[in-house]
Amino acid sequence: RYFLTGDDLKSLHLTFNRFSHKGDYGKVLLIGGSKGKVGAVLLASKAALRTGSGLVFALVPEDERLILQIGAPEVILANQDEIKGLQIFDALGVGPGWGQEIDISFYESLLKRYHKPLVIDADGLNLLSAHPRLIELVPNGSILTPHIKEFERMTGKVDHHLDRLQKARDFSEKHNVYLVLKGQFTSITCPDGRQFFNSSGNQYMATAGSGDVLTGMVTSFLGQGYPPLNAALCAVYHHGLAGELASETRLRGTIAGDIIESIPASFLKLGIA
Amino acid sequence: RYFLTGDDLKSLHLTFNRFSHKGDYGKVLLIGGSKGKVGAVLLASKAALRTGSGLVFALVPEDERLILQIGAPEVILANQDEIKGLQIFDALGVGPGWGQEIDISFYESLLKRYHKPLVIDADGLNLLSAHPRLIELVPNGSILTPHIKEFERMTGKVDHHLDRLQKARDFSEKHNVYLVLKGQFTSITCPDGRQFFNSSGNQYMATAGSGDVLTGMVTSFLGQGYPPLNAALCAVYHHGLAGELASETRLRGTIAGDIIESIPASFLKLGIA
Amino acid sequence: RYFLTGDDLKSLHLTFNRFSHKGDYGKVLLIGGSKGKVGAVLLASKAALRTGSGLVFALVPEDERLILQIGAPEVILANQDEIKGLQIFDALGVGPGWGQEIDISFYESLLKRYHKPLVIDADGLNLLSAHPRLIELVPNGSILTPHIKEFERMTGKVDHHLDRLQKARDFSEKHNVYLVLKGQFTSITCPDGRQFFNSSGNQYMATAGSGDVLTGMVTSFLGQGYPPLNAALCAVYHHGLAGELASETRLRGTIAGDIIESIPASFLKLGIA
Amino acid sequence: RYFLTGDDLKSLHLTFNRFSHKGDYGKVLLIGGSKGKVGAVLLASKAALRTGSGLVFALVPEDERLILQIGAPEVILANQDEIKGLQIFDALGVGPGWGQEIDISFYESLLKRYHKPLVIDADGLNLLSAHPRLIELVPNGSILTPHIKEFERMTGKVDHHLDRLQKARDFSEKHNVYLVLKGQFTSITCPDGRQFFNSSGNQYMATAGSGDVLTGMVTSFLGQGYPPLNAALCAVYHHGLAGELASETRLRGTIAGDIIESIPASFLKLGIA
Repeated sequence: RYFLTGDDLKSLHLTFNRFSHKGDYGKVLLIGGSKGKVGAVLLASKAALRTGSGLVFALVPEDERLILQIGAPEVILANQDEIKGLQIFDALGVGPGWGQEIDISFYESLLKRYHKPLVIDADGLNLLSAHPRLIELVPNGSILTPHIKEFERMTGKVDHHLDRLQKARDFSEKHNVYLVLKGQFTSITCPDGRQFFNSSGNQYMATAGSGDVLTGMVTSFLGQGYPPLNAALCAVYHHGLAGELASETRLRGTIAGDIIESIPASFLKLGIA
Repeated sequence: RYFLTGDDLKSLHLTFNRFSHKGDYGKVLLIGGSKGKVGAVLLASKAALRTGSGLVFALVPEDERLILQIGAPEVILANQDEIKGLQIFDALGVGPGWGQEIDISFYESLLKRYHKPLVIDADGLNLLSAHPRLIELVPNGSILTPHIKEFERMTGKVDHHLDRLQKARDFSEKHNVYLVLKGQFTSITCPDGRQFFNSSGNQYMATAGSGDVLTGMVTSFLGQGYPPLNAALCAVYHHGLAGELASETRLRGTIAGDIIESIPASFLKLGIA
Repeated sequence: RYFLTGDDLKSLHLTFNRFSHKGDYGKVLLIGGSKGKVGAVLLASKAALRTGSGLVFALVPEDERLILQIGAPEVILANQDEIKGLQIFDALGVGPGWGQEIDISFYESLLKRYHKPLVIDADGLNLLSAHPRLIELVPNGSILTPHIKEFERMTGKVDHHLDRLQKARDFSEKHNVYLVLKGQFTSITCPDGRQFFNSSGNQYMATAGSGDVLTGMVTSFLGQGYPPLNAALCAVYHHGLAGELASETRLRGTIAGDIIESIPASFLKLGIA
Repeated sequence: RYFLTGDDLKSLHLTFNRFSHKGDYGKVLLIGGSKGKVGAVLLASKAALRTGSGLVFALVPEDERLILQIGAPEVILANQDEIKGLQIFDALGVGPGWGQEIDISFYESLLKRYHKPLVIDADGLNLLSAHPRLIELVPNGSILTPHIKEFERMTGKVDHHLDRLQKARDFSEKHNVYLVLKGQFTSITCPDGRQFFNSSGNQYMATAGSGDVLTGMVTSFLGQGYPPLNAALCAVYHHGLAGELASETRLRGTIAGDIIESIPASFLKLGIA
């Protein structure tokens, strides 16, 4: 078991060097949103941009497209061609605000057609619990980011903290995925059994949309070419540090949007050029 | 009669402790809005988030949903299932921007189905005045937040300040509700006859939407598990202090959105961690 | 002829006193906007709020309502009842973004039904030029705010600066209106022949929407109960000073929205509590 | 070959003098956007405003108009009359977010009807590559702003850096246009063979929408009356400096919207009054 600190983190980052273009920083696609629940995708998309992604696409129901276009004009909405050619994306983030009524065959097709690690959160996880056959389709090395209730929906009721950690190891190993278990001390479990515990973050991050921000961050790092473990570690730590920085002047008045806007300050604080 | 100061206030707050998740800070639902008058719900929802709510849902006409989704992506729009299962919400805030043409049977059904204290403001109050039988359905311990004209619509014309305070006591006692009577010195009247007078706030808060902000704040504290009286006291005081802080650099140029953005500064100023 | 300075201005303001409510600061209605040109009404409405109005209503085509609701949630969109009961408004601001294809009978009905001074700008002025019989319907004491081209459309081609000032005097006297002639030195002409020249403002205010901001400010002061001359003088001066303050750190990069956000700083700088 | 520095730049600017009105700073039209890709036009339009344009119009599909109206209320959406009377515009910027399915006959008509230099970017360039006959219609002195891939689509695969510069000279001379070739050292190539290399900017500008911001800036300077070369030089340099300033506190967390908001700081830093 490892305790993750800012010092550990520095060496995990890829550099942004002078001779680069936006393609070097990854093209990611965030998939989620349903009528009335599209804010989650907006938060995730903005977080991905602030984490350094070169290009961020979003897929939401067409009637809701203005939410993304007005809230984050830098984001492009994926069209049918872009969805068909999924492989053009360096990473996918799937699930925020999806709702439970999503067309399950679309989800299945997505998992079958995309062959790189992807990030699954929220209703993307709940749908895995409701349709267990889907979990076999999740690409190796993917990153799942459940909070405790979502985790229990996947693995059954957990008795205590140690039981939960064991179940996380079992799940990661069995399905060959990374598991980011969100809570007061977020843990990252690897398929090889290693477990990391995050030291950043505070209680003021227990606010609506905070998890969507994390999804966007993990997807961004993954799309920038980080190995899944490093993507998870960097995202979890910066998410927590951004939350600490955002809450310094806001305390319990901190909201998810503030965390996004503090991501750059987290890079600055850790000296990640 | 009591005069409410910042010192009184501190001890009334529940703590935000390290081992918590967003469910600990309440799930609230703001109900209101009609075509052209949905900004009121946006203001109330944002205020609830800034006051510390873990999850904020809103119910507005479907065609107006983008107002909430773009203006506050952290807010989720309630769907029909969520409205049917009203008991999942820790508190409701009812009335901002509702208009007078609302389907009264929906309001009636709401009051019959929800059994915890709720917050009623604006057209939620005007509809009680227009349909007096509804007032008997208001759950015990609810918080009503009329300004002076709305109060007179409920109780009849008031002659002078003392008469108004007496009518407030009578009303609170008779209907077993807390009455927040908004004005230059906002008063909070309890069913047992106690009356509190707020010392925070200033004339620059006499601006469109200021009352909607208060509604969101009361609903937020109530949803966080505060007893109704404490929810009302904390909301009224922080609302006033946030207004003072917002107006320091804006004077008569202060608008409701500024008050919302100053709620965190109010927590900081009072040392409410 | 008078040269308007900050010192002159202070004594013209009404006070915001402790025992007030939003009704004391006026209820104004901004009328304008057509498909693709509704931003003008949003700018004017926000400017009215920042100038101190208690309640700001807007009337724009229904399909465009989200522009106002999202851009300024404090603003309420007027419905048919509110338009019929025009007298409930303390002041109207008419014209920004209206376009030339507006239903002229609506404009005519508006001028016939509203009996207090109102503010006319932009296409509201162009329509007066195109339909000269309408100008006889403009209420006495109204404030017209043309820029030089709009003025020439009303009075015919002007030869030089002094000719323009004479034509302004003639127009004001004949139609019993106040004329705010916008330019590098904005002049305010009274029906009694007095002319005031503004000393605030700079070249960076020559930007799209700057005039809409002024319209909102004049309407706001008028709705707060200022005599038309004082409303015009205060609006013109604060508009210019806000522009100066906004451009200090932005120079030619200043946009109309910046001017709005600097209105409070103008009050602060002049010590208008 | 020339290396462009801040000192060179100062003398290229036109002054903003006291006796001016918004017409003096140009009326520009940004044309682009398709369903889900309208954010590009919003970014370009805002950049044009921040660069000093007096009036900014945009042409996007009508159903997407709210994106512009809410995101930048200072921008006006062009209607059919305004599109017919193209000559009223001092400059056009064509292409951001257009997509490949645009009605090519509209593009052709545009190039035939507009006789002043214009700015072409993104899909405006890709369409020139796909329909080579169109390139003959591009007005002399126009400014094309491809990134390296877009350039290769126009001229064929490039072997190395020097080859690219030679191809740029050939292309500029042949078609009598200015070529802004975007990359780590953006180059500006003139029809007479001169080549300028920009010294401002950094790797943090390799982010979605950064190119759209540049398009808006070039169009703005062109519309203010700058000769095309000066418009390109000023835009490229300020774009880079604004990016540097925006990224000082954001590093890899910098997004295109930040660059826009730092344009005024670039004027301030160079002392461009």
